[in-house]
Amino acid sequence: MPERQFTVTPWEVSGVVDYDRLIRDFGTQPLTGPLADKMEKILGDEAYLIRRHVFFSHRDLDLVLDDHAKGRGFFLYTGRGPSGPMHIGHIMQFYFTKWLQDKFHVNTYIQITDDEKFLEEKRDLSYEDTQHWARENILDIAAVGFDPDKTFILQDTEFIGHAYPLILKIARRINFSVARAVFGFTNETNIGFLFYPSIQILPSLLEKKRCLIPAAIDQDPYWRIQRDIAESLGYYKAAAIHSKFLPPLTGVQDKMSSSKPETAIYLTDSDKMVRDKVKKHAFSGGRDTVEEHRRLGGNADVDVPFQWLYMLFERDDKRIEQIRTEYRSGRMLSGELKKILIDKISEFLEEHRKRRDKAHKTVSLLKHDGALAKEMWTRDFSKV
Amino acid sequence: MPERQFTVTPWEVSGVVDYDRLIRDFGTQPLTGPLADKMEKILGDEAYLIRRHVFFSHRDLDLVLDDHAKGRGFFLYTGRGPSGPMHIGHIMQFYFTKWLQDKFHVNTYIQITDDEKFLEEKRDLSYEDTQHWARENILDIAAVGFDPDKTFILQDTEFIGHAYPLILKIARRINFSVARAVFGFTNETNIGFLFYPSIQILPSLLEKKRCLIPAAIDQDPYWRIQRDIAESLGYYKAAAIHSKFLPPLTGVQDKMSSSKPETAIYLTDSDKMVRDKVKKHAFSGGRDTVEEHRRLGGNADVDVPFQWLYMLFERDDKRIEQIRTEYRSGRMLSGELKKILIDKISEFLEEHRKRRDKAHKTVSLLKHDGALAKEMWTRDFSKV
Repeated sequence: MPERQFTVTPWEVSGVVDYDRLIRDFGTQPLTGPLADKMEKILGDEAYLIRRHVFFSHRDLDLVLDDHAKGRGFFLYTGRGPSGPMHIGHIMQFYFTKWLQDKFHVNTYIQITDDEKFLEEKRDLSYEDTQHWARENILDIAAVGFDPDKTFILQDTEFIGHAYPLILKIARRINFSVARAVFGFTNETNIGFLFYPSIQILPSLLEKKRCLIPAAIDQDPYWRIQRDIAESLGYYKAAAIHSKFLPPLTGVQDKMSSSKPETAIYLTDSDKMVRDKVKKHAFSGGRDTVEEHRRLGGNADVDVPFQWLYMLFERDDKRIEQIRTEYRSGRMLSGELKKILIDKISEFLEEHRKRRDKAHKTVSLLKHDGALAKEMWTRDFSKV
Repeated sequence: MPERQFTVTPWEVSGVVDYDRLIRDFGTQPLTGPLADKMEKILGDEAYLIRRHVFFSHRDLDLVLDDHAKGRGFFLYTGRGPSGPMHIGHIMQFYFTKWLQDKFHVNTYIQITDDEKFLEEKRDLSYEDTQHWARENILDIAAVGFDPDKTFILQDTEFIGHAYPLILKIARRINFSVARAVFGFTNETNIGFLFYPSIQILPSLLEKKRCLIPAAIDQDPYWRIQRDIAESLGYYKAAAIHSKFLPPLTGVQDKMSSSKPETAIYLTDSDKMVRDKVKKHAFSGGRDTVEEHRRLGGNADVDVPFQWLYMLFERDDKRIEQIRTEYRSGRMLSGELKKILIDKISEFLEEHRKRRDKAHKTVSLLKHDGALAKEMWTRDFSKV
């Protein structure tokens, strides 16, 4: 068996990820066939992330659709670790979650794991840093446009006290042995980090319905533990729909990283920064000279600008295939391809920024004053 | 080296405890000589617990007295795990803490570790059980008569959310390796229990002064970790004054246990129950027959009624030595000795019950509305 050339854990993604291998290793299901068709039909205009296998794997998505069809309902849960500014890879998952909310009209829980990011020692963030990024990230998430009465943003450091009885019940079901096996904890892991999985599992138990979690595949270990303990606590096993990682600008391996700004486009990047980053750092599948490119064509499979258009920015199937053909044939040059991406990103960011500027008012609804948020803050968790 | 015949951990005390050995094993200081004299002088009428070595060991008590003398001040911290009704061994430590508060006029923090007791699996308490016992135990503690403006009862499940930023800072400093070495955690330990030491350390960091902890010696492992990390967080190493365990009624080994009601006198026991328990279960150092007893005398060293009088109920030195002499000589019979204890306990419990009945009003001051409680609930723990 060939040695595994990549690593995917909730805290590290490196190498060129073999997603088929991950499906086998994690024991999840590929999102293909009739189930994928069904999701595409439901998502309509926003189905391209399924069709193009950006969301490529799942657990119990069929049961979720069944619960929905039979009127039993379900709810959505996703999250963000506020360790720095959000990039376009991060926000993709929130737009997808919003589209699901729009189609299914279901409650959506968004966890801000500021405690986790403080406890993750290798990041070396101060408590103030995590609070700063929590505020900033929440604005970006609010800009996505979730239903303010059906969405609850729970920031761990604010909410843990209120939900502590349920968190304790979760924690009592998970022992060190299991946590070490699933997460690779070591003797050096601090005891806050050892406890943290109880907190990430909490939102999946906020309703006695099935919970569907749209998130990158690296978060799946949490749902594995959740699925081991949920029923014994009187709840449903979590369902999940897993996304791939948007490749870093600098090449199709590892993950975009906040510590390497050239690998990612942040939501706060200016048009000029976008232009400079894509021109200077985007890994190209083009040839060394124009002549060679015209003659041999570009390689779209490793070309990050093409991959970003395919995975995120160009929803039109006809148009993306046209670009692929043009590029492969050599008729389209790398610079031209990059220009298409730059325009798409700039357009997206301009719209996002406009929504972000108006999102300040929404934040208090999502966190405290909307219908769902109010329900959560008035729930007596010692009684659940 | 003889094999150790006893075990003392925060969750288990068994065998006949060798307290000198504990001082060596734990690396604490015996409370004797000029330091003990100084404490006796300060405590005045309530000095007998020091004089009789019930509080027999310490860490940095000399530095605490020095801080007090020099006007730098200090504060007190003790606690209770609400796993059942409190017995007279439990309440002793609170009366001692109150006497210290009376003499030094210092702030006193009392932690109710309801989360710990829920997480301690072998107890198998429901969350509701822990809440019930927390309420009951807090009434008993309030009955002791702490200064309502200088005392804060923090119940973990209520307070953890408010103080979470500081708890996270503590947790980040303690790794699994250290926690396992100090507490003997295993692969089966649940992750809530692994995290819990961060919470028991919290109250020792509520002021930037030295903290003096009057508590039974079994809690010392927590202070060992606290002393390793406090200074790096900008606080003082905790000082401690350690008590022995009041021996179970049934004999001078192990600890009084809530699961064996005959081993302890509960604060809620009626006069009749006290009488019956002492008469029936108290381990006696007397002889098999009256004739033999008159001839050979009783053994006060293993006689639990005598030990309880010595350690707790008979403060008068002259009187306790008179009892010892009478008993040893055979002039005093076991039944007579038991009668003295029964009267003392009944008198104590009657007074305690009266104070407990009036304590309902004090609880809200101690938990929320007194000056110190208010200060704690309005403190911004993200800024400490």
